[in-house]
Amino acid sequence: MAKIVTLGEIMLRLSTRANTRILQTDDFYATYGGGEANVAVSLSNYGHEAYFVSKVPTHEVGQAAINSLRRYGVHTEFVSRGGDRLGIYYLETGASCRPSKVIYDRSHSSFSEATPQDFNFAEIFQGATWFHWSGITPALSDETAACLREALKVARQMGVTVSCDLNYRSKLWSPEKAQSVMRPLMEYVDVCIGNEEDAQMCLGFKPDADVQAGQTDADGYKNIFCQMQKEFGFRYVVSTLRESYSATRNGWKAMIFDGEQFCKSRCYDLNPIIDRVGAGDSFAAGIIHGIISGMSLPDTLEFAVSASALKHTIHGDVNLCSVEEVMALAKGNGNGRVVR
Amino acid sequence: MAKIVTLGEIMLRLSTRANTRILQTDDFYATYGGGEANVAVSLSNYGHEAYFVSKVPTHEVGQAAINSLRRYGVHTEFVSRGGDRLGIYYLETGASCRPSKVIYDRSHSSFSEATPQDFNFAEIFQGATWFHWSGITPALSDETAACLREALKVARQMGVTVSCDLNYRSKLWSPEKAQSVMRPLMEYVDVCIGNEEDAQMCLGFKPDADVQAGQTDADGYKNIFCQMQKEFGFRYVVSTLRESYSATRNGWKAMIFDGEQFCKSRCYDLNPIIDRVGAGDSFAAGIIHGIISGMSLPDTLEFAVSASALKHTIHGDVNLCSVEEVMALAKGNGNGRVVR
Amino acid sequence: MAKIVTLGEIMLRLSTRANTRILQTDDFYATYGGGEANVAVSLSNYGHEAYFVSKVPTHEVGQAAINSLRRYGVHTEFVSRGGDRLGIYYLETGASCRPSKVIYDRSHSSFSEATPQDFNFAEIFQGATWFHWSGITPALSDETAACLREALKVARQMGVTVSCDLNYRSKLWSPEKAQSVMRPLMEYVDVCIGNEEDAQMCLGFKPDADVQAGQTDADGYKNIFCQMQKEFGFRYVVSTLRESYSATRNGWKAMIFDGEQFCKSRCYDLNPIIDRVGAGDSFAAGIIHGIISGMSLPDTLEFAVSASALKHTIHGDVNLCSVEEVMALAKGNGNGRVVR
Amino acid sequence: MAKIVTLGEIMLRLSTRANTRILQTDDFYATYGGGEANVAVSLSNYGHEAYFVSKVPTHEVGQAAINSLRRYGVHTEFVSRGGDRLGIYYLETGASCRPSKVIYDRSHSSFSEATPQDFNFAEIFQGATWFHWSGITPALSDETAACLREALKVARQMGVTVSCDLNYRSKLWSPEKAQSVMRPLMEYVDVCIGNEEDAQMCLGFKPDADVQAGQTDADGYKNIFCQMQKEFGFRYVVSTLRESYSATRNGWKAMIFDGEQFCKSRCYDLNPIIDRVGAGDSFAAGIIHGIISGMSLPDTLEFAVSASALKHTIHGDVNLCSVEEVMALAKGNGNGRVVR
Amino acid sequence: MAKIVTLGEIMLRLSTRANTRILQTDDFYATYGGGEANVAVSLSNYGHEAYFVSKVPTHEVGQAAINSLRRYGVHTEFVSRGGDRLGIYYLETGASCRPSKVIYDRSHSSFSEATPQDFNFAEIFQGATWFHWSGITPALSDETAACLREALKVARQMGVTVSCDLNYRSKLWSPEKAQSVMRPLMEYVDVCIGNEEDAQMCLGFKPDADVQAGQTDADGYKNIFCQMQKEFGFRYVVSTLRESYSATRNGWKAMIFDGEQFCKSRCYDLNPIIDRVGAGDSFAAGIIHGIISGMSLPDTLEFAVSASALKHTIHGDVNLCSVEEVMALAKGNGNGRVVR
Amino acid sequence: MAKIVTLGEIMLRLSTRANTRILQTDDFYATYGGGEANVAVSLSNYGHEAYFVSKVPTHEVGQAAINSLRRYGVHTEFVSRGGDRLGIYYLETGASCRPSKVIYDRSHSSFSEATPQDFNFAEIFQGATWFHWSGITPALSDETAACLREALKVARQMGVTVSCDLNYRSKLWSPEKAQSVMRPLMEYVDVCIGNEEDAQMCLGFKPDADVQAGQTDADGYKNIFCQMQKEFGFRYVVSTLRESYSATRNGWKAMIFDGEQFCKSRCYDLNPIIDRVGAGDSFAAGIIHGIISGMSLPDTLEFAVSASALKHTIHGDVNLCSVEEVMALAKGNGNGRVVR
Repeated sequence: MAKIVTLGEIMLRLSTRANTRILQTDDFYATYGGGEANVAVSLSNYGHEAYFVSKVPTHEVGQAAINSLRRYGVHTEFVSRGGDRLGIYYLETGASCRPSKVIYDRSHSSFSEATPQDFNFAEIFQGATWFHWSGITPALSDETAACLREALKVARQMGVTVSCDLNYRSKLWSPEKAQSVMRPLMEYVDVCIGNEEDAQMCLGFKPDADVQAGQTDADGYKNIFCQMQKEFGFRYVVSTLRESYSATRNGWKAMIFDGEQFCKSRCYDLNPIIDRVGAGDSFAAGIIHGIISGMSLPDTLEFAVSASALKHTIHGDVNLCSVEEVMALAKGNGNGRVVR
Repeated sequence: MAKIVTLGEIMLRLSTRANTRILQTDDFYATYGGGEANVAVSLSNYGHEAYFVSKVPTHEVGQAAINSLRRYGVHTEFVSRGGDRLGIYYLETGASCRPSKVIYDRSHSSFSEATPQDFNFAEIFQGATWFHWSGITPALSDETAACLREALKVARQMGVTVSCDLNYRSKLWSPEKAQSVMRPLMEYVDVCIGNEEDAQMCLGFKPDADVQAGQTDADGYKNIFCQMQKEFGFRYVVSTLRESYSATRNGWKAMIFDGEQFCKSRCYDLNPIIDRVGAGDSFAAGIIHGIISGMSLPDTLEFAVSASALKHTIHGDVNLCSVEEVMALAKGNGNGRVVR
Repeated sequence: MAKIVTLGEIMLRLSTRANTRILQTDDFYATYGGGEANVAVSLSNYGHEAYFVSKVPTHEVGQAAINSLRRYGVHTEFVSRGGDRLGIYYLETGASCRPSKVIYDRSHSSFSEATPQDFNFAEIFQGATWFHWSGITPALSDETAACLREALKVARQMGVTVSCDLNYRSKLWSPEKAQSVMRPLMEYVDVCIGNEEDAQMCLGFKPDADVQAGQTDADGYKNIFCQMQKEFGFRYVVSTLRESYSATRNGWKAMIFDGEQFCKSRCYDLNPIIDRVGAGDSFAAGIIHGIISGMSLPDTLEFAVSASALKHTIHGDVNLCSVEEVMALAKGNGNGRVVR
Repeated sequence: MAKIVTLGEIMLRLSTRANTRILQTDDFYATYGGGEANVAVSLSNYGHEAYFVSKVPTHEVGQAAINSLRRYGVHTEFVSRGGDRLGIYYLETGASCRPSKVIYDRSHSSFSEATPQDFNFAEIFQGATWFHWSGITPALSDETAACLREALKVARQMGVTVSCDLNYRSKLWSPEKAQSVMRPLMEYVDVCIGNEEDAQMCLGFKPDADVQAGQTDADGYKNIFCQMQKEFGFRYVVSTLRESYSATRNGWKAMIFDGEQFCKSRCYDLNPIIDRVGAGDSFAAGIIHGIISGMSLPDTLEFAVSASALKHTIHGDVNLCSVEEVMALAKGNGNGRVVR
Repeated sequence: MAKIVTLGEIMLRLSTRANTRILQTDDFYATYGGGEANVAVSLSNYGHEAYFVSKVPTHEVGQAAINSLRRYGVHTEFVSRGGDRLGIYYLETGASCRPSKVIYDRSHSSFSEATPQDFNFAEIFQGATWFHWSGITPALSDETAACLREALKVARQMGVTVSCDLNYRSKLWSPEKAQSVMRPLMEYVDVCIGNEEDAQMCLGFKPDADVQAGQTDADGYKNIFCQMQKEFGFRYVVSTLRESYSATRNGWKAMIFDGEQFCKSRCYDLNPIIDRVGAGDSFAAGIIHGIISGMSLPDTLEFAVSASALKHTIHGDVNLCSVEEVMALAKGNGNGRVVR
Repeated sequence: MAKIVTLGEIMLRLSTRANTRILQTDDFYATYGGGEANVAVSLSNYGHEAYFVSKVPTHEVGQAAINSLRRYGVHTEFVSRGGDRLGIYYLETGASCRPSKVIYDRSHSSFSEATPQDFNFAEIFQGATWFHWSGITPALSDETAACLREALKVARQMGVTVSCDLNYRSKLWSPEKAQSVMRPLMEYVDVCIGNEEDAQMCLGFKPDADVQAGQTDADGYKNIFCQMQKEFGFRYVVSTLRESYSATRNGWKAMIFDGEQFCKSRCYDLNPIIDRVGAGDSFAAGIIHGIISGMSLPDTLEFAVSASALKHTIHGDVNLCSVEEVMALAKGNGNGRVVR
C-alpha cells in the first residue's frame, strides 16, 4: 500500500456523553482528533502507511494525542514535540431539534505556533505517494501557513500527489483572509474537496443552489465544479452534500468531477446520527483510497460516501472502519442485518 | 428582569440510564425536580429572579435538592427545612413501543406536611411580579392546599399576577376531589395552562376532541377555551397538544387564547425524545417569559412551544436552555446544523 | 402455572455500550444468555415454573451465569457443574447503516462437552408440561445432540409437549449436517418455530418469498407451512418475519398455522431498536405461554409478537416483561404514553 | 443442608460510589439489603435452603428487591406483596477521618405495616431447622412486633431453633421501649448475638468495658455473658468487638459463650475497609452455619469472624463468600496472595 | 453571618478517576476550582454570604464554572463575563509511591487578561467584612496584579479585613518576581497564611527547619513567625505543615501566631488521602471562619486543621463540609464510627 | 536505542472495577496483556524499539489486542493473524484480607496453536539486540515450545542476548514437565529472572528460605544464585522478593548476581496496591533496560525494582511509566509530593 502524509493539528476533544449538555455533565469523554489526523487514521485502517505530521506538547496530554493515533497504526515519528498546549474543543451532541454545539479552545496550541524549522519535509516525503491537508492548517496562523507552503513546495518537487479539503472555519479567519491565503495554494492541489460553503468562502465560488434553504440538487453543482477545475487545474473536484432534517437525521450524498465525467452518489438516510464530527474527513480519506487503489470514478465516489455514512454511526472524530466494511455497505443494501 | 415566585414540591428523581429497566439496573441517575421547581429553573435561565418556595428535610438529600436549584440560579432562601423525607419518583425511560414508567414514592414528604406557618408570604411576594403554581400542590394534602390558598390571597393583595398549570395527577386525587379544590382557586388565576385531560379532571370541562384516539385538531379546542375564559375570567387560556406515536416519537404543538385571539403554534416532530418529563413545565415557563417580556401572543406561544420542544431533548426534569437557544429554534428551521 | 423445561447453552455476552465499537471500548457490559435460557426467563416472568438445564464451569463466571437466571426466578438445580469454560460471545450494537456484529467464542464450552450422564431427564421432566429446545443445542457437538435425543425420548415417554425453535447457525454447522441431524428430531416436535432461513437450512424447505430481497408477504408462507405440517405432523407451525430497514429500524410481524387456521399478526414498526438479540426467543416464549394459557390462535400470535416487539427495546438477551405489559401492548395502540 | 427462615425488612440502599459525598453525586449505586435478608444470602451461599420472609410493594422496585435475593439463591415465595413503599437508606461511605453516614427513609414501608395475616407461619416453618430475626424487626412498628411474636410462637411449637441479633437502632426506638418489647421475646431465643451497646440498650445489661473509649478487652465480657445466659437461658451468647481507628481501618474480633466455655477469636486488622455495612449480619450467619454444621465452639467463632472480616471487603450489604473462601481465611494467614 | 469577598481564578479541572493515568483514560472527571473559589465555597458551607469575583468566558464552560459555585451557595453576580477561555488543569491522582501530577493549561484565560475596569470594587465591598486573596492572583499577569492592588486599596478604605494565602507557584513566576510584587502588597494584609516554602519564595523568609528533608518540628517556626509579624504587622501568621509519607498517606498539622500566643494543632494521620488538592484553601477558610466567629486562637486553629483534614477525604477542589462536621472531628476522636 | 524482541501470548483481561466481585458485576474493564507483551510495552516506554511476536485471531478482539500495544509504541508487524480465539483471563482484585482471584480461559488460543511456520525469525531478529521470553510461552503447548526453540536457535546464531523470566504457572504444567522443557532451554539464556518458586518449579533449585512462611532474607538467596549461575552459565541471575501482608499491602525488593557481585535493593512498602498483575514483567523490563543502558549493577537493580514498585500503582497489566518517572523514584525518597 501507499505511504501517505497528512499535516495539521490534533486536538483533545472533550465531549459530553449520551446527549447530556455541558451545563449538566461532570464527565467528559476524551478523544483526540483533527481533520488531517482523522484522514490519516482512516487511511491506516485501509492498510496504507499513513504518517501524521504536527506538533504537540511534551507533557502527557500531548503524548496521549500521539498514542491515540499509534493505536490505529498511524506513524507519528514526525510529530514535533514542544510548545505550550494541546488545542481543545468541547462538543455537546444535540438531538432532534437541538443542534450539536462546538466550543473551540485552540488558540496558542503547539501546532499553531510551529514553524518550518520543526519539520524536515524532504525526509518526511521520502517515498511518499500522497500529501493531504485541509484549509484549517493555514487558517490557524501565519506560521502554520508557512509550514504548509514549505510542505507543498517539497511535495511538488518530490512528485507527491496533493489533496486539499477546503474546510472553511469562520472562527479562524474571514472569507477575505481565507481567499488571499488559499487561492495561491491551489496551484499545488491535484484533488480539491469541499462543500458549497467551503468553495465560496475559501475560493470565492458561489454555488447556484441554496443549501441552507434546503436546495440540494446535485446537478446544480456541475457548473461550479467545471469553473473550479478550469481555474485551478484540479484533477478531481469533489463535494459532499448534507441535507439536515434534524440533529439526529441527515441525508448524505456526494459528487465528483474529473474534468470529463460528473458522478453523483447514492443518498444515505442517516438516522440516527451517532456522531457527525469527522464525516468530511472520512469522506476525503475514502476519495484518496479510491484513487490510489485505481477504482473507477463512480466506485471511488461510492466508496467515499459509504465510508463517511458509516462514520456518522461511530463515536469520536475518527472512522473505525475497514475496507471490507465500507465495501459491504457500498455494494449492499444497508439493511443492517446482524453480521454473525 | 422580573421577580417570579413558584410554590410546590421538589422530589428526588431516580431514573435508569440509557433505556435500561428498573429490574436490571444497579445504578440510578439522581436528579431533582418537580413542576414548580422546573418552572423556576427555566425562568432563571431566561434571566429572571426566580424564587422557589417549598419545604425539604434538613439532611443532605434535602440539601442536595436545594443545591440542584441554586446551581441554575434559583433563589432558595424561602425553602423551609424540616419534616421527614424528600419525596421520590422512579423513572424508567421507554423506547419505541415500550412506554416510560413512573413510580411515585412521595407520601409523607416534608412539603406534603408543610403548613402555612412554614412560609411568610408577605415577605416572599415582596417586589414579585408573578406567582406560579400547579395543580399538584393542592393535590398533595389538605395542608399544602391551605398553604396555597394563603399564598394566593397574599399574592392577590400584593397585585401579583398568577399562573396555574392544572396538571391533574390521578395518583393524588379523584376528579371529584380535584374539582372541589381547584375550581374555587381559579378566581385567583390570570393564566390557566393545561391540556385537555387537565381541563376535564380539574375543572370539569370536556374537550370536543378525543385525544387518546388521536384526534388532535387544535381548532376543536377553541370552544372550550372560550367557556373556560368566560367562567373564570382568565386573561389567557393555554394548552399543549401531544401526539404520541411511540415512546420515542411525538408531535408537539400548543394553543393560546387571550379572550379575543386564538393562536395555534407550529408542530414539532420530536424524534428521538430524550426525556419528556418536565415538558409541560418548560412550556409554562415559556408562556410566563413571553408575557412578562411583552411578546405578541403568537410569539409568546411559539417561544413556549419551542422551549418545550427543546426540553424533550434534555435529560432531567429541568430545561437547560437560554433565551437565545429557544429563539434560534423558534425563528429557525430546526435543521440541527452544528453550532460552532 | 406450568412446569416448563428448556435445555441449551448459556453464554457470557460481552457487549459494547452505547453503540461504541469493539475497537474503541475498554469496557464490556456483561450479561448472560442463550436461546433456551432466554425462553426460560420469559416464561418465569409470565409466572411459570421454568427450569433451565445446562452445564457450566464450577468457577465464579459459571456461577454468575446461574445467578443471572435465578435472579428472574428460573430454577437452576438441574444445571450440571464442570468442564472447562463458559462460552462467550462479543456483541457490538450497530446503528443506522452500520450493522450489529457478533463474534462467537463458544467452542470447548462446558455444555458443548456435556454428555447424557450429566442429566437425569426422568427426574428433570417429573411433573413437567412442556419441553423447549432450539437447533443450536444439537449443532454444538455430537455430545449435545446425544443429550438432546435422550431428553426428547424421555419427554415423549412422559407425555411432555415439545417445542423447537429451528434457529439455524451457519457458524456451527452446514445445511447438510443440520438437516441430517434435525430432520429425524422433528418426530418429537409438537410446535415448530423458525423463520424462512431456518426452515430452509435445517429442514430443507425453500420459502416462496425472497426475504433478503425484501419480499415479506406473509401469505407466501402459508404453502410452506402446510408442507411442513404435513411432513412432520406439527401441531403448530410458527414463524416471525423481520423487515430490515436499518440496524436501528425494523418491521416485525409473525404467522402461525395450526393445520387449519393460518393467522398473520399486526406489524410493529420498531424504531429505535435497543437490542434485537433474543427477539426470537421472546417470541417462542410468547407462543408457549399463549398455548399453555389456552389463548385463541390469533391471541397467542399477537401475544408472542407483542412480547418480542417489546424485547427489541430491552438491553440484554432476556425479555424483562410481565404478562400485563405484553397484554397492554397487544391490546393497545402502542402510542407510548407514560405509565404513571 | 438445612432449611433456615429469616423475617425482616429489606430496603433499597442508595449509596454513593468511590467515597463521593451525597452533595456531589448524581449517581446512586442501588443494592438491596436488611439485617435478616443479609443473613439469608450468606446462608444460601453456604449451601443452605434459606427463606426470607417479608413484605414488599407490588411495583418494580419491590420486585427488584426480591430479585436481588433470588439471584443468590434465597427462596422468596413467602414474601408478601402489597403496601405503599420499599424502605430506603442512603449511604455515604467515609474515608480516613471522615465517618460514613447513613440516612434512613424507611417509615411507612410495606413491611413496617405488615400484619400477621400476611404470613402463614405454620407453612413457612414446615421442615425448618432454624429461625433468625433481629431487633430491628420488632422495632419497626407494633405490627411487625406482633408478626414476630406470632412467628416465635409457631417456631417454638414446631421445634425450630431461634437466633436473635439484638441490633439496637436508636432511630427506631428508645432503650425503654426496646427493653419492654425485647426482654419478653428472649424466652424464645436459643442463640443471642449482639455487641455491648445492643446488650445494654435492648436488654439492660451494662458491659464492664467502655468500648467508645477504646477499652475492648474481650475478657471483660465474660461476666456479662454469664449473666445473660443465666437470666434468659440462652444456649449461646455471642458478641463482636470492633476497634475503630478510622473510617478506613478497624480491628475486628468476637467472643462466644456456651454456658461453659468462653472463646475469644483472632483479631483481624481490616485495612482498607471497603464496606462495613452488614458485617454483623455476616457474622450472625457464620455462627448459625457453624452450629448447624456441628463445628466446635472455637471453630464456629473463627468461621463467623473470618466471614465477617471478608464482608468488610465487599460492596453492598450482603456477604458474597463461599464456605471455601471463609475457611481459607480462617485456616490461613490472610496474606492476600493471588489465587490463580 | 458575614459577607466575605474572594478574588481569583477559577479553572476547569480535568482529573482521571480511580488512580488511572492520563495515558490510559478516555474519561475526565470535570470539576471547577481555584484557590479563592475554594475558600468561598467553604465559607458558604459555614453559613456566610460568600462572593467570588473573577472573569470567565461567556460560553457554556464559563457558565458551568459559575454554576459549580452557585450550587454551593456562593454569590457570583460580580463575576465578569468575556475573554477567550477558561483556564484548565489536568490532575492525575497518584497512589503509594507514585506522586500525583498536575499539568497546567491556564495561560490566556479570561481572568488572567482581566483589567480593573472589569470590576467595581466599591460596589463589591459594600457591606463586606472580609476580603481573601492568594498569591496566585497577582502571579497570573500584571493585569491581575493591578486588579488586586485596586481591590486592596478599596478594601482598606472601606475597612475590610484582608487575608492572604501566599501560595507560591513556581510555574507562574520566579521568587524574585514574586517578592517584588508580593512584599509591597503585604501592607494591606491582616492575616497571612502560608507554608514554609511560600514564606521563602514570596516574602524571602527562610524557615529554620528543612521540611523537604522531613524536619517538621512546629516550634522551629515560631521564630520566623515573629519576624514576619514584626516586619509586616500581620495580626495573625498561620501555617500548615505537611509530612509526606506517600501519595496516599500524609501527616497534617498547623500553627498560628497572633503576636503573642503561638499555638500548635493536633496532627492528623491522613490515610488514605482521597484528594489533597484544595487542602490549603480549606484551611484558610477555616481560619477565616474561626476569627469571624470569635473563636479562641487554639479553637480557630483546630477548626481550620480539622476542616482541611476532612478536605483530604473529599473529591474535587472544594471542601463539602458543614460546621457541624468539622466540629465533630475537631472535638471528637476521629475514630470514624458510622453516623446513623 | 535498541531493537528488542519478545515472544509470547497476549490475552484479553476482563477485570472487575473498584474491588467488586465477579458475582456482583455487570461490567468488565477490558485491557490486554501477557508477560512478554507487558515487557515490550515497558521497553517502548523507555524509548526502545520493542517488537512483540505472537499470533491472534483476525477478528476485532484480536485487532484490539494489537492496537493496545501499538498505542504504546510497540511494533506489531510480526504478529501472525489466524486461529480461533484470543485467550482470556478474568481478574477480581481483592482488598485487605480478601485475595485477588484469577480465572484463566486461555486454552485453544491462536498463539497456543501457533507453529514455527507462523514466524520468520531470521527476519524478526534482523538488527535486534535482545530477545526476551518467559516460561509461560513453552508451557502453553508443545507447538509454542517448538516456536520458542526455533526462536532461540536463530537468536543464538544472530548474536542476540537472551533473557528469560521463568514464571512458573501451575495451571499450565507440572514441575516435572516444566523442568524437562525448561532446563534444556537454559543454555540459550544470558539473563535469568525468577523468584524462589520459579527456580524450584522450573529448574529444580530449592531456595534455603521459606518464603510462604515469611522468611524473606535476601542473603539466603546468594547461595542458590551461585549454583544457578554455575550450572547454566547465566551472565545475570535476578529475583524479586515479595512480602505479602495483605491483598492491599506488600513489601517489594529484589536481588541480582552477576557471578561476582551480589546486590540487594531497597525495599518498598507498597500500600495501597492498585494492581499487582504484571509487576514481575515490569521488573524484567527494568533489568533489560538497565543492562542495555550500561547502568551499574546496583543501579540496574534499583531501576528495575523502582519500575516495578510503580507498576503496583497502575491499573492493567502494563507499566505506563517513563524513564524519568522511574529514575525520580529510584533516586528520590518516594514521599509522594505532588508534581506540578
